[in-house]
Amino acid sequence: MKLPRAITDVIESFEKLPGIGPKSAQRLTFYLLHVPQGELDKFGLSVQNLKRGTVLCSICFAVGETDPCEICSDPERNTSIVCVVEQTLDVVALEKNGQYKGLYHVLHGRIDPLNNIGPDEIYVKQLFERVQKNETIQEVILATNPTMEGEATAMYINRNLKTQNKSVKITRIGRGLPMGSDIEYADDITLQRAMEGRREFNA
Amino acid sequence: MKLPRAITDVIESFEKLPGIGPKSAQRLTFYLLHVPQGELDKFGLSVQNLKRGTVLCSICFAVGETDPCEICSDPERNTSIVCVVEQTLDVVALEKNGQYKGLYHVLHGRIDPLNNIGPDEIYVKQLFERVQKNETIQEVILATNPTMEGEATAMYINRNLKTQNKSVKITRIGRGLPMGSDIEYADDITLQRAMEGRREFNA
Repeated sequence: MKLPRAITDVIESFEKLPGIGPKSAQRLTFYLLHVPQGELDKFGLSVQNLKRGTVLCSICFAVGETDPCEICSDPERNTSIVCVVEQTLDVVALEKNGQYKGLYHVLHGRIDPLNNIGPDEIYVKQLFERVQKNETIQEVILATNPTMEGEATAMYINRNLKTQNKSVKITRIGRGLPMGSDIEYADDITLQRAMEGRREFNA
Repeated sequence: MKLPRAITDVIESFEKLPGIGPKSAQRLTFYLLHVPQGELDKFGLSVQNLKRGTVLCSICFAVGETDPCEICSDPERNTSIVCVVEQTLDVVALEKNGQYKGLYHVLHGRIDPLNNIGPDEIYVKQLFERVQKNETIQEVILATNPTMEGEATAMYINRNLKTQNKSVKITRIGRGLPMGSDIEYADDITLQRAMEGRREFNA
């Protein structure tokens, strides 16, 4: 039996998504067959309008509704600090916390030679230009992920910013043991970073 | 930072799918942001047209493009055997094998009291009527999954068909060790079924 075209179309679309294989795609599609048409229309239209309803901020390159984004256009933010992150979702996570009051710069990726992603594929040149042009920027916080690729990206940015601009302070987000974790089960590199990142005890 | 409405709409749609949590939904949505608009349109339209392009066969209740479906309307099929399966995807799997030449009956589920699914929620009454009305049907193969719910459904159908129609032969698909498996690691029930299902050796 050949599956109807209407079904294979949806299966093929799901298969293209990361982490969804042929079997999951089939299962999701057959699940949708039992969903009311109104829900399907909502789903379909939201996917079609995804990019039309969003825009990249021309300053920090975060995905948002306006350009410049609500953070870059907020007069209350501290314009002397720029926090460099890999993805817009990282901005969302940091903003949920609410402690950080500076600006952001979204790279949209990390340097990852194994997947053919070099400095030209991410918004790193734009960061260098931004730091060069804006004399208000006094600190750049490198908040790429503490993975091999994230560390390499941080090192690359650090090196290039240092040669370009001697005065700007470059920091890396603190690495160490996450809250609720167990020293016994922590890996070597995390323990090493935790020792390196130790601070004076303030009771 | 609040995410744009266009993004949260897609995240919410993904979250409703089985097996996709909030984090996966976010990741899938941000992946789609990097996909060309043409692909998004294809995806969105295919979801909207999913149900419009499909119809339930009024004989076997398989999801297909026509009513009756291509199997029920095929004059070459053996109309004396009906294979009862849980889902249309089971028909697809059995048809890919290509050995079986009879007809099907899709239940669209299984009897599953823990999830409030009783005989009235699946197409089981329609099976009884079909066997009652069609005197050509001589064998009903119960090919529900070999799970607790599938076995219970098979038992329920067997009991009801026997009281309704004394002459029809009712069989259950063979259960035992799957090809490529290892007796050492097989579970008790599978081994028991494999012993019960032993057949004379034909070299």
